Amino acid sequence: METPIILKTFYKGKIKEYFTRADGELHTDLGIIKLEELRTKSPGDMVKSHLGIEFVIQKPKAPDFFKHAKRSGAPMMPKDIGVIIANTGVCSSDHVLDAGTGSGILAIYLGGIAKKVVSYEQREEFIGIARQNIALAGLSNVEVRHGDIVAEIQKLDERFDVITLDTIVSSQVIPYVPQVIYPGGFLAVYSPFFEQTKEIREAIGKTGFSQVQTIETIEREISFTDRGTRPATARVGHTGFITIARY
Amino acid sequence: METPIILKTFYKGKIKEYFTRADGELHTDLGIIKLEELRTKSPGDMVKSHLGIEFVIQKPKAPDFFKHAKRSGAPMMPKDIGVIIANTGVCSSDHVLDAGTGSGILAIYLGGIAKKVVSYEQREEFIGIARQNIALAGLSNVEVRHGDIVAEIQKLDERFDVITLDTIVSSQVIPYVPQVIYPGGFLAVYSPFFEQTKEIREAIGKTGFSQVQTIETIEREISFTDRGTRPATARVGHTGFITIARY
Amino acid sequence: METPIILKTFYKGKIKEYFTRADGELHTDLGIIKLEELRTKSPGDMVKSHLGIEFVIQKPKAPDFFKHAKRSGAPMMPKDIGVIIANTGVCSSDHVLDAGTGSGILAIYLGGIAKKVVSYEQREEFIGIARQNIALAGLSNVEVRHGDIVAEIQKLDERFDVITLDTIVSSQVIPYVPQVIYPGGFLAVYSPFFEQTKEIREAIGKTGFSQVQTIETIEREISFTDRGTRPATARVGHTGFITIARY
Amino acid sequence: METPIILKTFYKGKIKEYFTRADGELHTDLGIIKLEELRTKSPGDMVKSHLGIEFVIQKPKAPDFFKHAKRSGAPMMPKDIGVIIANTGVCSSDHVLDAGTGSGILAIYLGGIAKKVVSYEQREEFIGIARQNIALAGLSNVEVRHGDIVAEIQKLDERFDVITLDTIVSSQVIPYVPQVIYPGGFLAVYSPFFEQTKEIREAIGKTGFSQVQTIETIEREISFTDRGTRPATARVGHTGFITIARY
Repeated sequence: METPIILKTFYKGKIKEYFTRADGELHTDLGIIKLEELRTKSPGDMVKSHLGIEFVIQKPKAPDFFKHAKRSGAPMMPKDIGVIIANTGVCSSDHVLDAGTGSGILAIYLGGIAKKVVSYEQREEFIGIARQNIALAGLSNVEVRHGDIVAEIQKLDERFDVITLDTIVSSQVIPYVPQVIYPGGFLAVYSPFFEQTKEIREAIGKTGFSQVQTIETIEREISFTDRGTRPATARVGHTGFITIARY
Repeated sequence: METPIILKTFYKGKIKEYFTRADGELHTDLGIIKLEELRTKSPGDMVKSHLGIEFVIQKPKAPDFFKHAKRSGAPMMPKDIGVIIANTGVCSSDHVLDAGTGSGILAIYLGGIAKKVVSYEQREEFIGIARQNIALAGLSNVEVRHGDIVAEIQKLDERFDVITLDTIVSSQVIPYVPQVIYPGGFLAVYSPFFEQTKEIREAIGKTGFSQVQTIETIEREISFTDRGTRPATARVGHTGFITIARY
Repeated sequence: METPIILKTFYKGKIKEYFTRADGELHTDLGIIKLEELRTKSPGDMVKSHLGIEFVIQKPKAPDFFKHAKRSGAPMMPKDIGVIIANTGVCSSDHVLDAGTGSGILAIYLGGIAKKVVSYEQREEFIGIARQNIALAGLSNVEVRHGDIVAEIQKLDERFDVITLDTIVSSQVIPYVPQVIYPGGFLAVYSPFFEQTKEIREAIGKTGFSQVQTIETIEREISFTDRGTRPATARVGHTGFITIARY
Repeated sequence: METPIILKTFYKGKIKEYFTRADGELHTDLGIIKLEELRTKSPGDMVKSHLGIEFVIQKPKAPDFFKHAKRSGAPMMPKDIGVIIANTGVCSSDHVLDAGTGSGILAIYLGGIAKKVVSYEQREEFIGIARQNIALAGLSNVEVRHGDIVAEIQKLDERFDVITLDTIVSSQVIPYVPQVIYPGGFLAVYSPFFEQTKEIREAIGKTGFSQVQTIETIEREISFTDRGTRPATARVGHTGFITIARY
């Protein structure tokens, strides 16, 4: 196993979970684990710390990267990533164009699904973090490029099945989408504010897309306790609007 | 192109869209199209009807199958499919176990993402429809099996990364999930009613999963008209609860 | 009883309900009822049709007027009326200014609570309907006045505890609210669109209110059937935003 | 003015608000105010502290009592009080039966609207707090009685137009509601959990009500900032379900 792994153990009635690369040593309060040993093991296999505590090896999945990745800002929430994936139908044969990369969480989700993801980020200080997160996820099909997406999209000589935008300049990117998207391809644009979303809709309206819709999802967690069942009293409120359009 | 395609044209200011296999002739009110021609073409290429109307060829994507597939009941909505994909992190290297198949819409989504999907359906009359929909989607990695999932899961000699359940017997399936799921794998269970969801939670509680949560999403469409911007006045209400648990 | 009444009967296992004034005769498929008889009766008393079917007399309440009133447009929904009442704390000693009257439903609710309601409506054809609905509700403390609220509020020599606005000119009315509202009084403005709501917030911001908030409520009905309990699948979507501000 | 008042001032660009009875002296960081002076004044009049700072006198309204009242537990939220008021149409001629009193917030709202409110509370330690809050609100038409509502409703010799229940024994109270409610009167029952709500619905089903519905409202606040307009990111989640039934 070359990619990072999760080591999980049940100790004194509690689950303990460690997210790590298979490299060097992992020092935990349940003992030291030699990580080189993991290279010859598979998910489901066990490994022991020097104190004899057994850990089961887990393959990490996209939600782990959402939880454990280093963040350069507020990443897109799984609920919104789900809306994008379900409404674009992104699949294993797809080429995806993404901007801006941010911490790379959406790119990691898309990279786990699609054939190839190209993701642009303008802020140089974010690129390192994103590349590190993507490497940690073991994804070699996600390429983070440095550049202003408004300028870069005009120079692109590739075509994409799905294009995802989460930038403050999304409405300026949209006029160039037809040059790089396959007919039948989907554009998904994330925007937190109404004013932005309106500009995005106007840009889409002028560019000639079909099947345009703007969606917002409200996620509720249901709480199950001895007192009874009910929607949770605390939760995340609004995140953003997602506008889907097909070329 | 062997899989079905979408033929799209703009005619008299309106978009017309045809969903078809690349086989025989397509008779439209804009003329007849010889579909064999399409076998040598790619998405983005044009084809003409015998009346000279040009159609652009599109590769169909999962949302098209949701829209055009033959239905044997109410299929899971994209908003719920998105919740499952985002919270399980299902990816291109995954093996997925799914039940019940229904019309096969969720299996088509999962098949577009994962390496292999095995889907069980007990009602014989549904199997034909599901297989037909999956064949139409061009997916050879989705296998629909006939059988009662409660009995079948006990005989399975495979292991899966993700297991998705949308059946009335889900709470009876859950005790056997540990035998067929990889450590770190995710279970996602869809249930329309509170009573069912409570049984599912109880079964999960007894079986020893972690990271358990039950989610409901409310989807709102935002309407943009000349009169102004607002959440749409009409919309889909409740569909179901999705319980996610990790083994 | 001078006000209208509801006559209710259980007949062949079904509830039948008639909303009527205590005047003349009521012809129903369960016989004729002489309504003059009702003048000497009280809610809870019985009355018989000429076919011997018994009806119980009910005092109508505000939700009945919402259901039975003649409508000149889409009236405000009870869910939004509830938000206004709860957030303004309108009570039995209050004087209320309302515009535009519309069908008079909000004015009927407010008239059932407050000491005095003055309601302005510009469209002459609506005034007759509103006055008829208010008379039917037996409310003598609700006065419908004909006029443009933007002009009329500037001439008013009265003071109000609560002011409710549901007009397309609300943002133009707001600057004059301080002249007619008691310190500590509440303004409630209903607006369906974001653009309008933003203008309302800007007008409120310039005028010097405190405790400003804009609320939207999503109402869900819970469905209880033999199959189970769940939020209803069909329902009303967005109606409007309510902005509350205190002077 | 005998009831409590609010004293409001703008000082160094900020609103300062004091909620007080018109009794003795109020010591603020903007000086001392002799409260006896207020007895001869009216809302909108001004009063000065000994430091010469001017305060405007405001009549308090129900939302102030929600904010300032002493609490014996989590009181019902205005959003839910609004649902009860709008769906029962409670008005100035109504007699209301309420249980349990809790901090008395709902009773204060109802007392500000109805002719008479009788409210039962079983926990003796809560009664003092509720009576104090109600006295502070200047309401002489709200009577808090000590007793177990299940036992007390069976002995009652009065009739009510509206009955509101927020107790853990609500489903045991419901069978006796017909003995004390006017035909056409409304019952409103608040319950946080599904299990309870189901019991309430079953009790209502056996008792012979009509127009039964269970409502849940999700309240969202809209945020207006220089960055843009959007639903607020933080908010209150679920509070409770409200079941409305008409006798």
